[in-house]
Amino acid sequence: MKAKLKSIEGSITAPKGFLASGVFCDIKRLGTGKGSNKGRKRDLALLVSETPAVAAGMFTTNQVCAAPVKVCIPRVAKGRAQAVVANSGNANACTGRQGMKDAIEMTRAAAAAFHLPAEQVLVASTGRIGVCLPMDNLRAGIRQASQLLGHGPEHAAEAAEAILTSDSRPKQVAVEFKLGGKTVRLGGICKGAGMIQPGMSMSGKRPAARQLHATMLCFLTTDAAIERAPLQAALQEAVAQSFNRVTVDGDMSTNDTVLILANGLAENAPLASVRAKEFQVFQAALNQVCLELARMIVRDGEGVTRMVTLRLSGARSYTDADAAVRAVANSALVKTSWCGGDPNWGRIIDALGYSAATVVEEKVDIGYSAPGAKKVIWSLRRGQPTGVSFKTLCQAAAPREFDLHIRLNLGRAGAILYAADLTEAYVDFNKGDVSNPASLGG
Amino acid sequence: MKAKLKSIEGSITAPKGFLASGVFCDIKRLGTGKGSNKGRKRDLALLVSETPAVAAGMFTTNQVCAAPVKVCIPRVAKGRAQAVVANSGNANACTGRQGMKDAIEMTRAAAAAFHLPAEQVLVASTGRIGVCLPMDNLRAGIRQASQLLGHGPEHAAEAAEAILTSDSRPKQVAVEFKLGGKTVRLGGICKGAGMIQPGMSMSGKRPAARQLHATMLCFLTTDAAIERAPLQAALQEAVAQSFNRVTVDGDMSTNDTVLILANGLAENAPLASVRAKEFQVFQAALNQVCLELARMIVRDGEGVTRMVTLRLSGARSYTDADAAVRAVANSALVKTSWCGGDPNWGRIIDALGYSAATVVEEKVDIGYSAPGAKKVIWSLRRGQPTGVSFKTLCQAAAPREFDLHIRLNLGRAGAILYAADLTEAYVDFNKGDVSNPASLGG
Repeated sequence: MKAKLKSIEGSITAPKGFLASGVFCDIKRLGTGKGSNKGRKRDLALLVSETPAVAAGMFTTNQVCAAPVKVCIPRVAKGRAQAVVANSGNANACTGRQGMKDAIEMTRAAAAAFHLPAEQVLVASTGRIGVCLPMDNLRAGIRQASQLLGHGPEHAAEAAEAILTSDSRPKQVAVEFKLGGKTVRLGGICKGAGMIQPGMSMSGKRPAARQLHATMLCFLTTDAAIERAPLQAALQEAVAQSFNRVTVDGDMSTNDTVLILANGLAENAPLASVRAKEFQVFQAALNQVCLELARMIVRDGEGVTRMVTLRLSGARSYTDADAAVRAVANSALVKTSWCGGDPNWGRIIDALGYSAATVVEEKVDIGYSAPGAKKVIWSLRRGQPTGVSFKTLCQAAAPREFDLHIRLNLGRAGAILYAADLTEAYVDFNKGDVSNPASLGG
Repeated sequence: MKAKLKSIEGSITAPKGFLASGVFCDIKRLGTGKGSNKGRKRDLALLVSETPAVAAGMFTTNQVCAAPVKVCIPRVAKGRAQAVVANSGNANACTGRQGMKDAIEMTRAAAAAFHLPAEQVLVASTGRIGVCLPMDNLRAGIRQASQLLGHGPEHAAEAAEAILTSDSRPKQVAVEFKLGGKTVRLGGICKGAGMIQPGMSMSGKRPAARQLHATMLCFLTTDAAIERAPLQAALQEAVAQSFNRVTVDGDMSTNDTVLILANGLAENAPLASVRAKEFQVFQAALNQVCLELARMIVRDGEGVTRMVTLRLSGARSYTDADAAVRAVANSALVKTSWCGGDPNWGRIIDALGYSAATVVEEKVDIGYSAPGAKKVIWSLRRGQPTGVSFKTLCQAAAPREFDLHIRLNLGRAGAILYAADLTEAYVDFNKGDVSNPASLGG
C-alpha cells in the first residue's frame, strides 16, 4: 500500500508533543585543547516526548556491542520510553564495566531533568571505540540540553547536527499522512558516514547461519497511537528494507541503533495489531521515511562520490541473493571501478562467482539504468558481452547515482542493496594522522 | 621436518632439464597502437621440460572460472604434462566457446613446436576479463618463445617477467636440497598484485559450506622423482599454507592457478606415496618455496605499503579462526588504519565481532610484534586496553612488516593470514581511466 505522504519540516519535532535539542559538550574536541570556539561541534542530542510513549528499537548484531546498546535492548523490550539521549565523538564501546555505568548514568542524568524513571530514557553513542566517556562533559551537556529543548524545526536540526561524526551534513525527514481520519506525523534524524553495513535485529542477536553486517544511529518519532507489538513489527520491516540494505564500507559497527517513540497524541484509533486496518498505511510511511534516511547515509558516506543501487534477481534463495549482492557491493575492485566510472562487468561477475551464492556464468545478465528507471542498458547477457559500446556503458556508469541490474536467472529470489564507491578520499580520511590522535576516527 | 635448503639462482630453470622463455607479443599494448618499442612489455611465457613430467595443480574455486582453468583441470587430473604456456594482459575469462577454443589453440601451438600431444601442455592467462585473446599475436609469440627457450637464469627471469600484470617486479625462488643422497632442485615463479585472495582446490570445486577466496599464477618445477598422488598431496598442503593464506584486496580471481612439473631427472629414489621416507623433506621444501612466493605477492600487491601477518589463536574451530582472521584482514577500516600506521584496535575488535566466528569481547587479546618475533606488545587483553602508550603502539604498527596477534581465548583452533594495507594508490590504480580503456585493469 502506497501511503499518501506529504513531506513536512521539522523531522523529530514535527509530530505533536516531541521536543529536541543539540548542544556542545566538547566530547569531539578532547585532546585538542579547549579555549577557542573554533571547530567546536555539537555532540549531545536530547529528544523528549511530553507524554509517555511506546518504544521499539533495532540494534547491531555485532557480537562486540557497545554499552549503550546493551542498556537499550532490555529497556526497549519493555516497550515504553519517553526520552533519548545520544552523544557523538565517543562510542562508549569496549569500555567494560565503566562503560555500562556511564551509559546508565547518561540516562539517569537525562531522567532527573524531567523527573522520569531512568528506565524511560534510551541512550546511544557514536565515535571512537575503546575510550571511556568524559562524564563531566556529558553531565554538563545533558543539563544544558534539557534546558534548551524546543518544539521548533531549529531544535530538531540541532539534534540532527549533534549526532554527526564524519557526516558532512545533517539528515532529517518528516512526513504527514492520514490514519483513520486523523492527521499523523512521523519524523526522523540519522547519521552514518563510515563503518556502515548495518545488520540489526530487535534483540541484537544474529539470526542463525546468516552473517549480517556503520555506526549508524537513527531516531524516529511519531504521534500515531500504536501498540508495542505492531510498532516493533513495523520497525523491523522498515529497517529490513532500508538500513539493513545499505553498505558504505562493509564494516558493521558495534553501535548501530534505530529507535522509535510513538506518543499517540494524534489521537487516531490505536493500531493494536499488524492486522489492524490502518497498519499498512503506517508501515508504508515508516518504510519510506527509513529508506529516505538510509539512502542519505549512503550518499553522505565517507569519501563517497557515487551511490549505486544494486537490484539482483533470479537467485535460488534469498540467502543467495543477499550473499551475491553483498559480494559485489563490497568488492574493492568493483567499488574502485565505480569511483572511476568504469563499467567493468568483469569485476562484477568475478565477485558473483566467489560469493557464497550459486552462480552460473552462462546465465548471468548485468545492466545499468537511471535510478528507478525501467529502461536497462545490458552490458552482459547470459554471460556474454552484448556488444553495447564501451562509450555507452561509460555514460550509464557515469552519473552520481545509477542502478546496477544483475539477473542470475536461476530462481525467483531477489535483493536490493544501496552501495557506494571506494575513493582516495575514503582512504585518506580513515588512515588518519597518528601524530594527532584526536584526528583518528572510530 | 625442516629441510636443509640452499637458496640458488634460476627459479624455474634451476632444476635439471627445464627450459623457459618470455617474449613480447603485444597483448598488453592492444588498443594503444603499435609502432615504437616504448612501453612494450613481455607478455608470453613458455616453460618446457626436456623429458615427460608428472604434473599437479591447484585452481581457483570461483564459480566463474576462465577458459585456461577449465582446460587445465582435466589435463592435470591425468597427472602428466611437459610444458606450460601462459600469457598476461588478457585473462581469457568470460569469453564463452571462443575462449575455450583459444585456450586449447594456445596449447596446440606450443605442442606443435615440440612435437608433443596438446594434452601434455598446460595453459594459464591473466589480465582483463571479457575480451577474446588476440590469437595472431599469441601464435607469433608462442613461435618466438619456443625458439628462444634456454636453461639459464636469464631465461627464467624473462618468463617471470612475462606473466606480470600490475606487479612492480618479478617473483622468483629456487632451492636445492638432498633427497635420499641425491641433489634435488625446486624452483618457482609467480605473479599477483590485485584481485588477490586465492582459495584454490585441485578440482576447482569448493569444499561444501565454506567460502574460499587473486589473479595469481605460480609455476613450479622440480627435478625430483615423485609420483602423481604424492605430488598433488604435497602441492595441496603447500598451497593451503601459502597462496590460500594471502589476501591483498579480498577479491578471488577467475584465473588463480598453481602448477608444478616434476621430471625426475635428479634420479632420487622415486617418492611413491606420502608415507615415503623422504616425502616430508620434499613437502618442507615445497612449503617454503610456496610461502616465500606467496609473501612476495602480498608485499608487491597493488599500492601496498605494509604487509601484516595476522596470527589468530584460541578460536572454537578452524572455520571460526579463518572467518575471524579474514574479517579483520579484509575490513576497509582496519586496512586503512594500517596504511596510516594507526594501531586502532577498536576497528579490529569490531571486525572480529561481525565475523561469522564466535567472539566474546571480554576474552579478546590483541597485540603486535616484529615479524616472527616472540615478544608481543599487547594493546588489548581480555577486551580491555592494557595501558601501553599510544606512542608505543604506533611504533609497533609503523614498520613495513609486522605481526598482528589475536587471541580469542575460546578454543584451540588458529589461523594465519598474510594481509596488506589499503592505500590511495590502490584506489587510484584500480579506478583506471575510462578515457583510455587500455589503462583499465582486470
